[in-house]
Amino acid sequence: MNVLLVYAHPEPRSLNGSIKNFIIRHLEQAGHTVQVSDLYAMDWKAVLDAADNTVARKEIRLDPSRDSQDVYENGTQRSDIEQEQDKLRWADAVILQFPLWWFSMPAILKGWVERVYACGFAYGIGEHSDTRWGIRYGEGCWPASAPCWWSRSVAGHLTMRHEASTAPSTTFSIQHGILFYPGFEVLPPYVVYRTGKLGEAGFATVSEELGQRLDSLWTDAPIPFRKQNAGYYLIPELTLRPDLLPGETGFGIHLDQPSFSGNSMSSVNGFDK
Amino acid sequence: MNVLLVYAHPEPRSLNGSIKNFIIRHLEQAGHTVQVSDLYAMDWKAVLDAADNTVARKEIRLDPSRDSQDVYENGTQRSDIEQEQDKLRWADAVILQFPLWWFSMPAILKGWVERVYACGFAYGIGEHSDTRWGIRYGEGCWPASAPCWWSRSVAGHLTMRHEASTAPSTTFSIQHGILFYPGFEVLPPYVVYRTGKLGEAGFATVSEELGQRLDSLWTDAPIPFRKQNAGYYLIPELTLRPDLLPGETGFGIHLDQPSFSGNSMSSVNGFDK
Repeated sequence: MNVLLVYAHPEPRSLNGSIKNFIIRHLEQAGHTVQVSDLYAMDWKAVLDAADNTVARKEIRLDPSRDSQDVYENGTQRSDIEQEQDKLRWADAVILQFPLWWFSMPAILKGWVERVYACGFAYGIGEHSDTRWGIRYGEGCWPASAPCWWSRSVAGHLTMRHEASTAPSTTFSIQHGILFYPGFEVLPPYVVYRTGKLGEAGFATVSEELGQRLDSLWTDAPIPFRKQNAGYYLIPELTLRPDLLPGETGFGIHLDQPSFSGNSMSSVNGFDK
Repeated sequence: MNVLLVYAHPEPRSLNGSIKNFIIRHLEQAGHTVQVSDLYAMDWKAVLDAADNTVARKEIRLDPSRDSQDVYENGTQRSDIEQEQDKLRWADAVILQFPLWWFSMPAILKGWVERVYACGFAYGIGEHSDTRWGIRYGEGCWPASAPCWWSRSVAGHLTMRHEASTAPSTTFSIQHGILFYPGFEVLPPYVVYRTGKLGEAGFATVSEELGQRLDSLWTDAPIPFRKQNAGYYLIPELTLRPDLLPGETGFGIHLDQPSFSGNSMSSVNGFDK
């Protein structure tokens, strides 16, 4: 299978660098083909701006969404963006790997999402009517829905009750808003906590756990987010049907398996026990 | 009073550009002094990397946290970072203004947080013992705790039940993780929805609501997040005391006024009704 690893850490000799190398080696040894978008090594342009439009239009007011659709449909995108979109079309699975900085992904990775997710490619496609609202939230923009998950490292130690209130605030917006939205089948993330105290033994444990996750990449059950156009939501209101979990709020309402809500929305591994 | 407006939008002629100008004009007319960090206009370096360390140390493995502390304490920070830190020391209030892109702040603003929040300036300071864990989560790193709030624009229309499950995933990590952590008194955000459909009348409403928010900047009650070292959390476990809201999870557990939990954690204005 083809795997795209989108990786964001400035130091190759870091724990993240070692984990990245482990992922590549493990997948290739299993016979998979891996492409790596090492954003720092690529000197990835993190900032979405007018320069992303290769057609000079100084007089025209910049509209990030409309402009990205224009250049996408006219084939005048910057090549760095085009190449990443091609990798996404090529990939059978996508892995995002990054350190958790200030409770979200590093700016360079956020900028990859903002620039590669062009209107017409990752959103803004399909019929928008009283019965469906685009091709999104569970319906793929890519040729095939690729399973996507992510691995992140956290310097601190988050306990369940912190995890339940902080990690999902990062997890949900990435899993539901950035991955489920354009059609990925989202697998639970793998998280390494207390990275500063990991040590050799800790890394051996991480390698073992990570290897198991990689081996079950195509068999693990994705997070059962409700598909937007599958009848759970009112359209065009885009609200959850009033008869579903009336009065309830929180991340769990977007899952069609209640057992998945609450703490299981957060990602916990050996280091959290 | 001194107000710092950190603003992130690439198009001056955008709705965000008009809102930014309104905020500046309104505050100055009220006699306040405003400094604006217009990140796009400043061509702000969004990516945290080895170049942030002015002392060449090619042979040394880059450690974002340790390195930022070294240059901060040795006075060898890049001037762009130093200038933003000086603005934060100068400000009596800070306003973050940005469009919501993929459920979080634009990469250029996230990069401002990552680079300006040096270790020793915004975190990693104070006593770490069995009774206190640094000066953070409600205790100021800046000379004075400044009220901080933020204004964001959302292209889509979020209803309460979406808001309750999506917006807080953005809101909480910014309010609690990025603003409360280094000691700001965090005020509820002001949010404009359906920006594409706003129109003249809509902008008049926004201006009126925004003007009221600006007028009450120093009198509005901050979100009552529990202070980390005030007895609510076990230290050094850094978990909420088991006798507080036993079994409960979610953002609300970090508030010491239950009435604030749930939907009131989300930001709703006229456009959401």
